[in-house]
Amino acid sequence: MTVPGLIQFDEWQDTYALRVETMRSSAVRDLFAAASRSDIISLSGGMPDITGLPLREVGEVIARAVLEEGVAGLQYGDTTGRLKTKQVVCDLMRDFHVATSPEDVLVTTGAQQALDLIGKTFLNQGDVVITEGPTYLGALQAFSAYQPDIHTVPFDDEGIRTDLLEEELERLGRGGAKFIYTIPNFQNPGGVTMSLARRARLLELARRFDVLVVEDDPYGRLRFEGEPLPCLRSLDDEVVYLGTVSKVFAPGLRTGWVIAPHPILSKLKLVKQGTDLCGSALNQVIVERYFNETDWRTTLTGACERYRRRRDAMLEALAEFFPPEARWTRPEGGLFVWVTLPEYIDTPQMLSVALENGVTFVPGDGCYPAGSGKGRNSMRIAFCYEEPDKIREAVRRLSLVIEERMELCRAFIAAGQLR
Amino acid sequence: MTVPGLIQFDEWQDTYALRVETMRSSAVRDLFAAASRSDIISLSGGMPDITGLPLREVGEVIARAVLEEGVAGLQYGDTTGRLKTKQVVCDLMRDFHVATSPEDVLVTTGAQQALDLIGKTFLNQGDVVITEGPTYLGALQAFSAYQPDIHTVPFDDEGIRTDLLEEELERLGRGGAKFIYTIPNFQNPGGVTMSLARRARLLELARRFDVLVVEDDPYGRLRFEGEPLPCLRSLDDEVVYLGTVSKVFAPGLRTGWVIAPHPILSKLKLVKQGTDLCGSALNQVIVERYFNETDWRTTLTGACERYRRRRDAMLEALAEFFPPEARWTRPEGGLFVWVTLPEYIDTPQMLSVALENGVTFVPGDGCYPAGSGKGRNSMRIAFCYEEPDKIREAVRRLSLVIEERMELCRAFIAAGQLR
Repeated sequence: MTVPGLIQFDEWQDTYALRVETMRSSAVRDLFAAASRSDIISLSGGMPDITGLPLREVGEVIARAVLEEGVAGLQYGDTTGRLKTKQVVCDLMRDFHVATSPEDVLVTTGAQQALDLIGKTFLNQGDVVITEGPTYLGALQAFSAYQPDIHTVPFDDEGIRTDLLEEELERLGRGGAKFIYTIPNFQNPGGVTMSLARRARLLELARRFDVLVVEDDPYGRLRFEGEPLPCLRSLDDEVVYLGTVSKVFAPGLRTGWVIAPHPILSKLKLVKQGTDLCGSALNQVIVERYFNETDWRTTLTGACERYRRRRDAMLEALAEFFPPEARWTRPEGGLFVWVTLPEYIDTPQMLSVALENGVTFVPGDGCYPAGSGKGRNSMRIAFCYEEPDKIREAVRRLSLVIEERMELCRAFIAAGQLR
Repeated sequence: MTVPGLIQFDEWQDTYALRVETMRSSAVRDLFAAASRSDIISLSGGMPDITGLPLREVGEVIARAVLEEGVAGLQYGDTTGRLKTKQVVCDLMRDFHVATSPEDVLVTTGAQQALDLIGKTFLNQGDVVITEGPTYLGALQAFSAYQPDIHTVPFDDEGIRTDLLEEELERLGRGGAKFIYTIPNFQNPGGVTMSLARRARLLELARRFDVLVVEDDPYGRLRFEGEPLPCLRSLDDEVVYLGTVSKVFAPGLRTGWVIAPHPILSKLKLVKQGTDLCGSALNQVIVERYFNETDWRTTLTGACERYRRRRDAMLEALAEFFPPEARWTRPEGGLFVWVTLPEYIDTPQMLSVALENGVTFVPGDGCYPAGSGKGRNSMRIAFCYEEPDKIREAVRRLSLVIEERMELCRAFIAAGQLR
């Protein structure tokens, strides 16, 4: 029973597993409710712009599919996914010069489930995982459930610092890390893309130190500038590759995939059985039909065009409004820009003030492992969801909040209270 | 690289987590492929009969929903589920005299995910869970990932033996078990239903020994004989209740739900974030529309009528063909009958012979925790999926396989080789 206004006593508080104690709620997810207030401009969510989807056509495709597939489209299905869906995945991977056949593919309930399955399959408590720092907060959430020790390696404009990665691997020794988790294209939250030289170097290090590489590639097709680079999986078939339709079609289908060496795939399949039995047959049917029967490339080109205009608006506004002390990345695709502020600015604290001023962002600390103390002077701002004029206004609002805090800090410093 | 005909060397075999070693693949899932051979009659799967679904109407409902909901139906959604979906859940629960509001509900990716989330939220390695023995093999798979110690309590025709449950709880002491997992209605695999007296007794014991009760109720609406009994949740609002649309609408939507005390619900929500972010918005929209816009009760009544005829065919065939030494349950609803054979019959071994003879079943050992050694002379046979004449033929085939093995055993006994 809940008594309004009182903190609820939790009689089950001693029964939760230890892993729950260290779990943090995603700031992005928690901002969902706030972001729906009409006066707030959200730079926090990574929601793709799917306003260009031909809804009438999608609806008709689905209605036809339900009739034509019959009950098979509404029944339980194979744990690894429908054969036709896997064939669509293979077709999509061919664009990336990855030769796969359906038996190399496990269809997952979004790429987020793939991260959970990988954590569940590989991680004992205390095992070491290496990620970029900052990295995708959902990956941190997924892995954390298995209580690993997450080590982060910084990136620069060419992606993960492979020199620092090498030092880390040398410290850990051969087999000292379970896997390296990386987002080579338009990294979340960094927006940076790993150069070809770094890709080759990372794979070389992984082989030398006998570490599995997990390549997460949700944004690979969202390039609106420059030339595509080969994905890690196309360079080394021991790489575990994660893909998703979320940013290419729609997140509401919760359909992603893993491509992995067969022994790993069979373990992931076993683990998926207990996790959710199988993916939604209907969603898979819709994915098959969308990629086989609609002009999805044109729809996607339209979305990328909108992302490019929004990124331009964001970079222009940052240059115009943000203080000279701030630095930020310049993505050639994807959804995000990563901003680093002076060290004395605390973005988690700043969030509530920003909300009052009608703008949201993701504080940087959430993109580092819990308790690391890192990222508190940085933030992820997304350019994917709002129109250019709103992005400009949001960046302006944010700059005012930052300026105010910088003023405050300067006053403190002047008063000798802070160094 | 896979070389045909050779067992593949797994260079990652030392990197898997310990939990994977004890995981077993579900016999049901593995039989999926075999069961699709046209000469085989499957008594193994728990796939509901959804042939009565009005496919044209469902297709049209979906097409309309995609247009009317717009991009919201294809976007990321709230981790706890769509408000309208939760309202549908509340409406459904009202039939069971459970008063809930949307904030009591977490929408999950099928009830299987709810089992995973409960394991993840409550179980440290070695924690004790109490289940009926035998129990749902998917629950064993879900919980096992968190390496608990699963204790089983047998059932009889009135459901779980609460006298033995009391002994077990006394042995464990207050707070000695994390939760009791039970399927009160048409238990999987038992087919038995817990009597009202046992329900009251189980709740009394749970309160006395301070143990959470997890009530899994996928089959509650599939009653085709006798009077419904109140669900545990309607008798005690500390019970965690799991529901699903799989057997009431369609499994291909992967939509289930948890109703739980708020503190527990907030932990489950946190855990769900890292597991798959959120459920499929589209599937939730379809669920809303199906229950609000179609005559689903009539469709379900039709399905129950078919189940009743099939159960009758199965019970008649068992009485006619099975040896007098065999015993079986007599379900008043649901999908399954549980058969116990003489102790010297080994059903896991018998499965391949049965397959050769064109019939599949679930060997009983899979419905007990791995390594318990229990259930090897029993089997789950499902009457949900095949027509009465096929069920009769399948039971006949199965009886021949059993008779043959009994003959063999009797010959061994006569020769003094076996006692």
